[in-house]
Amino acid sequence: MIAKQLPGGYNGKIMRVNLSDHRISVQAIDELFCRKYLGGAGFVTYFLWKELRQGTDALAPDNRLIFATGPVTGVPLPGSGRHCIGAKSPLTGGIAKSEVGEFWGAELKRAGYDAIVVEGKSEKPVYLWIHDGEASIRDAQHLWGGNTKETQEAIRAELGDNKIRVALIGSAGENLVRYACIMNGLHDSAGRGGLGAVMGSKNLKAIAVRGHKAPQIRDRERVRELKQWLLANMPQFKLLSTLREFGTGAAMEIFESVGNLPVRNFRDKLFPEVNKIDAQAIKNTIRIGMEGCFACPVRCKKVVQFQEPYPVDPAYGGPEYETLAALGSNCGIHNLKAIAKGNELCGAYSLDTMSVGGVIAFAMECFENGLLTIKDTNGIELRFGNDEAMLEIIELIARREGIGEMLAEGTARAAQIIGRGASEFAIQVKGLEAGLHEPRLKPGFGLGYMVNPHGADHCTNMNDPMYATAEQLKELEPLGILEPFPVTDIGPRKVALFKAIQSKQIILDSSVLCMFLPYSIKQVADLVAAVTGWDTGITEQLVVAERILTMARSFNIREGFTVADDTLPQRFFQPKTDGSPTAKLDPLEMESAKAYYYTLMGWDAATGIPTPEKLEELNIT
Amino acid sequence: MIAKQLPGGYNGKIMRVNLSDHRISVQAIDELFCRKYLGGAGFVTYFLWKELRQGTDALAPDNRLIFATGPVTGVPLPGSGRHCIGAKSPLTGGIAKSEVGEFWGAELKRAGYDAIVVEGKSEKPVYLWIHDGEASIRDAQHLWGGNTKETQEAIRAELGDNKIRVALIGSAGENLVRYACIMNGLHDSAGRGGLGAVMGSKNLKAIAVRGHKAPQIRDRERVRELKQWLLANMPQFKLLSTLREFGTGAAMEIFESVGNLPVRNFRDKLFPEVNKIDAQAIKNTIRIGMEGCFACPVRCKKVVQFQEPYPVDPAYGGPEYETLAALGSNCGIHNLKAIAKGNELCGAYSLDTMSVGGVIAFAMECFENGLLTIKDTNGIELRFGNDEAMLEIIELIARREGIGEMLAEGTARAAQIIGRGASEFAIQVKGLEAGLHEPRLKPGFGLGYMVNPHGADHCTNMNDPMYATAEQLKELEPLGILEPFPVTDIGPRKVALFKAIQSKQIILDSSVLCMFLPYSIKQVADLVAAVTGWDTGITEQLVVAERILTMARSFNIREGFTVADDTLPQRFFQPKTDGSPTAKLDPLEMESAKAYYYTLMGWDAATGIPTPEKLEELNIT
Repeated sequence: MIAKQLPGGYNGKIMRVNLSDHRISVQAIDELFCRKYLGGAGFVTYFLWKELRQGTDALAPDNRLIFATGPVTGVPLPGSGRHCIGAKSPLTGGIAKSEVGEFWGAELKRAGYDAIVVEGKSEKPVYLWIHDGEASIRDAQHLWGGNTKETQEAIRAELGDNKIRVALIGSAGENLVRYACIMNGLHDSAGRGGLGAVMGSKNLKAIAVRGHKAPQIRDRERVRELKQWLLANMPQFKLLSTLREFGTGAAMEIFESVGNLPVRNFRDKLFPEVNKIDAQAIKNTIRIGMEGCFACPVRCKKVVQFQEPYPVDPAYGGPEYETLAALGSNCGIHNLKAIAKGNELCGAYSLDTMSVGGVIAFAMECFENGLLTIKDTNGIELRFGNDEAMLEIIELIARREGIGEMLAEGTARAAQIIGRGASEFAIQVKGLEAGLHEPRLKPGFGLGYMVNPHGADHCTNMNDPMYATAEQLKELEPLGILEPFPVTDIGPRKVALFKAIQSKQIILDSSVLCMFLPYSIKQVADLVAAVTGWDTGITEQLVVAERILTMARSFNIREGFTVADDTLPQRFFQPKTDGSPTAKLDPLEMESAKAYYYTLMGWDAATGIPTPEKLEELNIT
Repeated sequence: MIAKQLPGGYNGKIMRVNLSDHRISVQAIDELFCRKYLGGAGFVTYFLWKELRQGTDALAPDNRLIFATGPVTGVPLPGSGRHCIGAKSPLTGGIAKSEVGEFWGAELKRAGYDAIVVEGKSEKPVYLWIHDGEASIRDAQHLWGGNTKETQEAIRAELGDNKIRVALIGSAGENLVRYACIMNGLHDSAGRGGLGAVMGSKNLKAIAVRGHKAPQIRDRERVRELKQWLLANMPQFKLLSTLREFGTGAAMEIFESVGNLPVRNFRDKLFPEVNKIDAQAIKNTIRIGMEGCFACPVRCKKVVQFQEPYPVDPAYGGPEYETLAALGSNCGIHNLKAIAKGNELCGAYSLDTMSVGGVIAFAMECFENGLLTIKDTNGIELRFGNDEAMLEIIELIARREGIGEMLAEGTARAAQIIGRGASEFAIQVKGLEAGLHEPRLKPGFGLGYMVNPHGADHCTNMNDPMYATAEQLKELEPLGILEPFPVTDIGPRKVALFKAIQSKQIILDSSVLCMFLPYSIKQVADLVAAVTGWDTGITEQLVVAERILTMARSFNIREGFTVADDTLPQRFFQPKTDGSPTAKLDPLEMESAKAYYYTLMGWDAATGIPTPEKLEELNIT
């Protein structure tokens, strides 16, 4: 029996906003609720599961748009500047959730709330203003149509506080592009699944927050110890050093050489121009600085600026690895400035660079194969490598003009519209364009693309390990994984490891913590214990992960998803088409892995449906 | 990758003894092995699984008899004076393992070994003498036939050291009574499954040990802290206070009143004379003191003495709860002195008091129902309540004389021999007579009796909780079990809880630690970490438990066990026959619970066979 007192790390309050009648209320949450769902992705999943009627249109007022912090959000510790946003996805029709950094989540926590659940639709554009426990819905008609920079500046100006943090959308969100994102400030995005379109469908332009109440921490000393451990050991964490120096995308040349870089819509292996577009090239050319998130000394976010051949505003940061690969190699483009410009446009319009890149690469392959013609594109030579075409298409998508109208629907829908076998070129799962990580080299990644409730999202299985060294195995010891096995194995041991990694990730997404920090699964559980005061550890957190993942699964099942939706694009079962022979996935092996994953999750091995017993065990009703 | 250095708590050496050729050798074990199998029950299970050919007769030389300590055995901490003994069971034909206290296990550790694996059969009776790394096989022809007290005294005398610890058998072991036990000294027994018969079949009378090397502990301070926590809080642990004052069996009157006391072969509810035979009565009448195990201040073991109507030697201790219920209420007997005498006889002859009581209660019910007659019993009026008959039968069983020849085979075999529906009265699972705990009141206990690889053993699920209070739930929080549910529930949540409790117990049995000490599952994992130096915790220990339980299951499957062997006696599906209406189990509910238990273990839900994927995941080959 959990005590009734509020644990550390929580405000115990969820703000409920109904935009249809402009009613704001506060929902109290108790300790048991917090402990069962943790926060972030857990809260998102809970509200979608409990409140959304089956078949609700993702762009209808009844959809919920949830912004949720976790117990660790806003704690003065590197990696804690994150929160999770979720809704039913207009892109996949299933659950969408996306984590995002910057300062907004910490600010919401300081403003006195753990989460915001938005429902309904405002008659006219509005934005929400939350400050130190107070909240109001304000007119945004004058902001509608503006890009994110204009909007953020205007809101700060009219509220008279330059430290206000703003989550917001640009025109792509307003125009209901199915993969519009929500920006946190100007260069951090809750990118995946079309959350920006949901925000747009509610006529909600922005949520501005400001607060001054530091979150309560039960055991400050333990948190401080973890922070000190991290700071003292930072130089030895190679990933952090690299991130600090380059941000993401420093190793693209190696990726290309081993076949891990998506090239021309995941079709090809070779991309000799890779070193023109990687993070090292950025550092040496267009970069003017680095920025970071709340409480984080890593500062992994590039800032770029240039004027020619077109100006790029440093306010929008610079392209991360996913963007470099999505708008770059995967479109066959090696013009770094064009990629940076594309990144800026996506930030200004609130577009997910990954889906944008996936859609354009798909369209390029369709064009090269005659499935789209110059007539369809209004004269654009939509070929791999055409960087100007890429920039033009982004504009068209954001405005839903010309071919942009179709492409704004996302790869899967566009392929259906085009027909004639175009779906062969649609590199997506459940409608979500694939992350820029090559499952043919890492079958655990492939499994993640298959079974992830949000579609082919790279984050849930970001840390698919190569585990070959004693050091890499060290984190897994407390999980009872003691012996190395080949990376390319996708047998039961790897599936069990995948489940553990996926579970860790959903705990990170619910805590909420950045996956880049080198906290072990044990340290994460310890941190949750220290902040909340709970006597918790890895075992309980794995149960929490199972509950959240099973609830997300149940949501998708209710929306009509079946085992057939847990399927990879055929391309991943073929080797790449140029260069030295490359790996491919074995469809039978992947199906076996999927069935065993279901089994480990307590879902029916054949249908992937959570068993009634598992639902009862986890108290999912 | 686990480092090659030896972890704390281990000697890294297993003594291999082949009695057929009197060869002694030493097998080194490395850190990975220790970490995967832990010790105690884990080591026992490993050697039986890896080394026993399918179908080996339990009483044939090829059977292995394994004495295994764990990393915690011999650590100066209350509850650490235990080890595990195992073999293929002559009673069940499956795996047998039994834990035992006293000082022998700690002494073996101090003598330089973690375990002893005995195989083969000596031509003539021998005993094994192990001291400070040295070992020899010594003649025991002069000891054969002697009771345990004579034998222990003779060995100590001839080796000239009164502090030698002796594990040994009496005549029941020599005579291959299928439920003969192995005594540790004179009042602690590795009771269940007929391990004494296996020892007898090898012509091995005793193993005497003496050593002076304290086990290495990696983090003495953490161990000391746990000990200090225990000592400082001892008064508040009601169970410990009760054990300290009475030993086990103080609450038998309450047990009777709620229907938890087995009465007349689990048939009846009422036993108004219960307060004549409980531990409070013992304290007030025949008790002369209390004794304890290595490093334990609880001292829960009764010592009794009297001369009339027959002498009882205090060297054999006094009856524990299981014995009081087995030879007492379950035989309808309320003569405390007779029970104490029966206890002494069982200690002297090395007989499992629980199986003895179960066999006699079975025979009494057969007799009262005309399935056994006065002719069969050589004139003994084998009726419930006849205490003299009980004592006579024990003598006959130990000598395999008269009806003792049949009863020495155990309840299940005796029921088959008798036929005519006698099996209705055989309260056993897999051939092991049931523990003296009423599954009709605690369905989790019933599930334990069903699925336990060793049969209806009470220890594996000793702590089936009533979990109604916040305090009782506290230990379970780190497992993610946060909400109470009714004791009588046997749905998925209870099955998941059962799995957790069973897992904790197998970790206790492998560490090896006493179940009576109030260490939480988290403290147990912490203790293993402190002793060994491993970065381990609950999660890994649960994987270890799953590996051991799945290996034990696989052993039984190899020996021909099927899902049909996981079945309770029909009696438990009926209410008791006198007194107020009592609970009964629902067969369909129990079958559902069993299937869900299989599922949670990663075994086929229908057959209970571990899936190939689970075996591969756990590296069971």
